[in-house]
Amino acid sequence: MKEVNLKKFDNSWYKPGSIFKRFTWHVISSIFINSNLPVPIKIKIFILRLFGAEVGHNVTIKPSVNIKYPWFLKIKDNVWIGEKVWIDNFVEVVLHENVCISQNALLLTGNHNYKSELFDLMPGKIILEKGAWIGAKSVVCPGVKVKSHAILTVGSVATKDLDEYKIYQGNPAIFVRNREIL
Amino acid sequence: MKEVNLKKFDNSWYKPGSIFKRFTWHVISSIFINSNLPVPIKIKIFILRLFGAEVGHNVTIKPSVNIKYPWFLKIKDNVWIGEKVWIDNFVEVVLHENVCISQNALLLTGNHNYKSELFDLMPGKIILEKGAWIGAKSVVCPGVKVKSHAILTVGSVATKDLDEYKIYQGNPAIFVRNREIL
Amino acid sequence: MKEVNLKKFDNSWYKPGSIFKRFTWHVISSIFINSNLPVPIKIKIFILRLFGAEVGHNVTIKPSVNIKYPWFLKIKDNVWIGEKVWIDNFVEVVLHENVCISQNALLLTGNHNYKSELFDLMPGKIILEKGAWIGAKSVVCPGVKVKSHAILTVGSVATKDLDEYKIYQGNPAIFVRNREIL
Repeated sequence: MKEVNLKKFDNSWYKPGSIFKRFTWHVISSIFINSNLPVPIKIKIFILRLFGAEVGHNVTIKPSVNIKYPWFLKIKDNVWIGEKVWIDNFVEVVLHENVCISQNALLLTGNHNYKSELFDLMPGKIILEKGAWIGAKSVVCPGVKVKSHAILTVGSVATKDLDEYKIYQGNPAIFVRNREIL
Repeated sequence: MKEVNLKKFDNSWYKPGSIFKRFTWHVISSIFINSNLPVPIKIKIFILRLFGAEVGHNVTIKPSVNIKYPWFLKIKDNVWIGEKVWIDNFVEVVLHENVCISQNALLLTGNHNYKSELFDLMPGKIILEKGAWIGAKSVVCPGVKVKSHAILTVGSVATKDLDEYKIYQGNPAIFVRNREIL
Repeated sequence: MKEVNLKKFDNSWYKPGSIFKRFTWHVISSIFINSNLPVPIKIKIFILRLFGAEVGHNVTIKPSVNIKYPWFLKIKDNVWIGEKVWIDNFVEVVLHENVCISQNALLLTGNHNYKSELFDLMPGKIILEKGAWIGAKSVVCPGVKVKSHAILTVGSVATKDLDEYKIYQGNPAIFVRNREIL
């Protein structure tokens, strides 16, 4: 059987931004965003915009939020990002209006080609459409689109697109019931 | 279809304590409880009691334990709280005698009414009865009572009450076998 | 029914190393390894070796990696350890060539005998054979051997040995398909 060889791994084609920008972001983020300090939301948003994020109105960002690269992040109005949420965005992540990401959830944009001995990086962008709710400690996998008002329940893993106004649970997350807003 | 509007969210009826108390707790906790510093257990318990927690004898609290509001927390004798456990208690959480909460587990007391466009906060208290074991990286959902000596296995999600002397696994956690203590 | 009594818990037979060594490691690790500081990989490896870890060539260790006891850790060539990985090694953990442990995964070596009122500690060593991939936010349980090129998918929980060139998913993780490297 063929074997994987991580020494041959090559992601030189992937250009996430200059080392200076990434280093500066890492340091600033560790102090103001990915930290437990009670930093006012206006300062967090100011910093995120300074590093290229698009941030709408009335956005809430709790402590210890880990964002990989803010210049790949778009946040629309009325979005909530819970404590210890991890947006691991090697590529674009878009959070539409009224999205709620609960505490300790993970948005994962980096996959690997496990069928190749080179274990190539395969980034996939994530889109959370309006009104979607990503439950606490759940994971959205690379390339997944969570459609309008879909819900991923606590601790679940979305490996495929989630349909609008539907609720998904488990690992892999499967449809369990409809979401009716009365 | 109706849509959720987080701008209309209103939790003004929810009174978790004065902003001064919460802010002071957040800062003190970040240094002594929710941190990796090797703080003696007696100091941790002294601080927790100072902020209104009820803490029994022979209690173990490992590093980086995140407690939302200690004034809503009751810990009886011989309880173990593992590293990086997160007690996200918007309302009361009671840990009875000989409860073990393993590392990185999450007790979640805040839900939202996803059937309302207002996404209302729906807190639910959590009771872990004596001898219960909450496995590493698992989650207890709002309003759940874990009865005497029940076990929630590693990485599982308890969405309903767990019965005494029974073992539950998966997401949602289902009964898998009895717990017999010989 | 018999009840568990954590006051009677006794792990005095377990000798993980002197208190001085463990305390020093905890402090040093909190600064250089289990932290978000951008520490050069050469310094991390130097420290790990100083504390008794065996570390091969071409090893990658991301920020905030939590290692319990480095003197129980063997890392072979070309291994990747992702951000916030937690190697909770009360006993030996061996990571063979070309292993990848993705972000926030947990290697758990400590179990408890839940059939005893003493709740005895039952450590179990973990071996990840060459080319294995442990997915993000997944858990490998005590005593599990992950065989050559097996994959544990995102958020899954390995409670038993995983066979070579096979892919496992869920909690508990079950076989879902073969891994073919082309």
